[in-house]
Amino acid sequence: MKKLAILGSTGSIGQNTLKIVSLHPDKFDVEVLAAAYNVSLLAEQIKQFQPKTVVVMEEEGAEKLKSLLKNEICPEILVGPQGYIEGASNKNTDLVVLAMVGAAGLGPALAAIEAKKAIALANKETLVMAGDIVMAKAKENNVKIYPVDSEHSAIFQCLQGNKIKDFKKIFLTASGGPFRQKKISEFAKITPEDALNHPNWSMGNKISIDSATLMNKGLEIIEAVHLFDVSPEQIEVLVHPQSIVHSMVGFRDGSVIAQMGIPDMRGAIAYAMSLPDRLDIDVDFPDFTGFRKLEFEKPDTDKFPSLNFAFEACKLGGTLPSVMNAANEVAVEAFLDRKISFTDIFNIISKCLGKHNNIDKPDLSGIIDSDKWARETALSLI
Amino acid sequence: MKKLAILGSTGSIGQNTLKIVSLHPDKFDVEVLAAAYNVSLLAEQIKQFQPKTVVVMEEEGAEKLKSLLKNEICPEILVGPQGYIEGASNKNTDLVVLAMVGAAGLGPALAAIEAKKAIALANKETLVMAGDIVMAKAKENNVKIYPVDSEHSAIFQCLQGNKIKDFKKIFLTASGGPFRQKKISEFAKITPEDALNHPNWSMGNKISIDSATLMNKGLEIIEAVHLFDVSPEQIEVLVHPQSIVHSMVGFRDGSVIAQMGIPDMRGAIAYAMSLPDRLDIDVDFPDFTGFRKLEFEKPDTDKFPSLNFAFEACKLGGTLPSVMNAANEVAVEAFLDRKISFTDIFNIISKCLGKHNNIDKPDLSGIIDSDKWARETALSLI
Repeated sequence: MKKLAILGSTGSIGQNTLKIVSLHPDKFDVEVLAAAYNVSLLAEQIKQFQPKTVVVMEEEGAEKLKSLLKNEICPEILVGPQGYIEGASNKNTDLVVLAMVGAAGLGPALAAIEAKKAIALANKETLVMAGDIVMAKAKENNVKIYPVDSEHSAIFQCLQGNKIKDFKKIFLTASGGPFRQKKISEFAKITPEDALNHPNWSMGNKISIDSATLMNKGLEIIEAVHLFDVSPEQIEVLVHPQSIVHSMVGFRDGSVIAQMGIPDMRGAIAYAMSLPDRLDIDVDFPDFTGFRKLEFEKPDTDKFPSLNFAFEACKLGGTLPSVMNAANEVAVEAFLDRKISFTDIFNIISKCLGKHNNIDKPDLSGIIDSDKWARETALSLI
Repeated sequence: MKKLAILGSTGSIGQNTLKIVSLHPDKFDVEVLAAAYNVSLLAEQIKQFQPKTVVVMEEEGAEKLKSLLKNEICPEILVGPQGYIEGASNKNTDLVVLAMVGAAGLGPALAAIEAKKAIALANKETLVMAGDIVMAKAKENNVKIYPVDSEHSAIFQCLQGNKIKDFKKIFLTASGGPFRQKKISEFAKITPEDALNHPNWSMGNKISIDSATLMNKGLEIIEAVHLFDVSPEQIEVLVHPQSIVHSMVGFRDGSVIAQMGIPDMRGAIAYAMSLPDRLDIDVDFPDFTGFRKLEFEKPDTDKFPSLNFAFEACKLGGTLPSVMNAANEVAVEAFLDRKISFTDIFNIISKCLGKHNNIDKPDLSGIIDSDKWARETALSLI
């Protein structure tokens, strides 16, 4: 029985993780659930999965939760960032599913590593902001980090049974998002509704916008560099509109191993939860003769400069990836709030990267400072 | 240093194996070379690779070889089927590359297994004719059989790092051959030259015709059933004209792992020679954005009934696969000799299968008898 702490249990990754738990109650037990603000759904999850500990972000949420659970056995309730740290390092868990969105995932990730807990990592920002520190600490503590998003899970799956010395290249696939075929001249008019309408994947709001700007792929480039210890030059982004090939790995003999599946994030989550075993999760194989073809194109970096930002931030390193990530978070929120246009997202990130005095080999406080600086700078540009 | 016996060294698989050896002289040593009739090329290979033992099919060839090597150190020369058996079981070798064409591969395969030598198997007929016996004997002797043709190597590569219990399905890809888009009404007029002109792969004559009739895929279905211990129902044939996806494996979680590469048989050969390591073999990655798309279609079994023959022979088992294989060998030879038409290949196989009294769980002599019966029956139909 594998005991789980699921941080971000009411988001889409969290909910899918719990779906898999409910399919395999003999294999998984939920020890900790954490949900920042969606206390009503958290209360439902508590009733169904009976964790011993839960975490919410504010005292008000904790009070609401107690009243929602007044006729139930109420778990221990922890509150705020410190509550997340405690939830991530809970001594009874075997695997921490880190499914929080944004920079808030970093603290819990480091706490889980220090507590020597394996991590199923859905939070990109952890590695984007502090990849060097996180991976070094994971190595030091002999902690395994299993990727949860579909691309990195695909790469991870493709590497199984192979030797790292033979691993040469990552083909990182991107759906191209909803605006792959839209003219660049129409980009300024894109609304949040347009951008949230992803052609293949059903995901949270932040990641859907990141997918529309291709910044999601930019963050994934940086994440891949850290997770798989490759240089940015070893990564080629391929636009693949069908989203069937989730990514591929090239080896020294010219062989390319690809992982495919219908676009359903349960595959990557279940693999991180159970590898090297695979679970029955009620996901069908792709219908290869039904869709008939898989297409691949070079990405258009004039339309989507995010990829250039990411490659550049990744090559230069330091605090630039953190700045890129923070500026993007602020810009995406402003776009969703209709305060800026779609193309302003690129402009704000670009300006923040240009204005930033990069710090080489930053420590954690340097990274957090750069994150704060970038948020303030981005806000000032809105 | 891995010591090799290469049986069929002058055929296309044999020559490619030696190309890989010449790229990695620090890793491989050639102990035995066998070539039935192409003694001139064998002599060149002996000069370059200096095997201790060689095998040819006839005394006349042995004499010619001696005269060709009169100024060289001449290896031990073995002759005839018994020579092949001895070559396959040579005590100094670590790996037997079984690259002979046709039913003649069966004896050497069994000899190699009894001598507990790992086998890189390019000879399909070994498993098609006697898969049950060969695989049981390999298991009994704890002998590894590594597939060399690109499809089975792909499947084998896709299974690495996974558990057999999670393995659900094989997607066996087929280029569709040169006549994928030809009308069935024009099939009778197909010449050997047309049929030898394969769109993607450069191969030997027999296998090129088998590829044009899709009988190659039929033989591969049966081979896969034995190599990977699956039922025929677990295999789906996909016509994939680009020949980039060499085959795929589906797992219980809906994940599909594919192995891809440019159409070059060195990849599969090198993997069988070196796994789990991969070798530099000067083969580029596929240019995904260059060819832009990978297509998949259901095979047309009206045009290519070979797939139905194979599925049926495989389900019914016994001596039917052996009969199918032998009838095909005779028919292909007659077609290459312009004695029958392209569609007669199907007719002859179909008639032989229809006339045959199937023997359940045959022993080796039963299989050999059925092979002989099918050859005679096929010849009588020409």
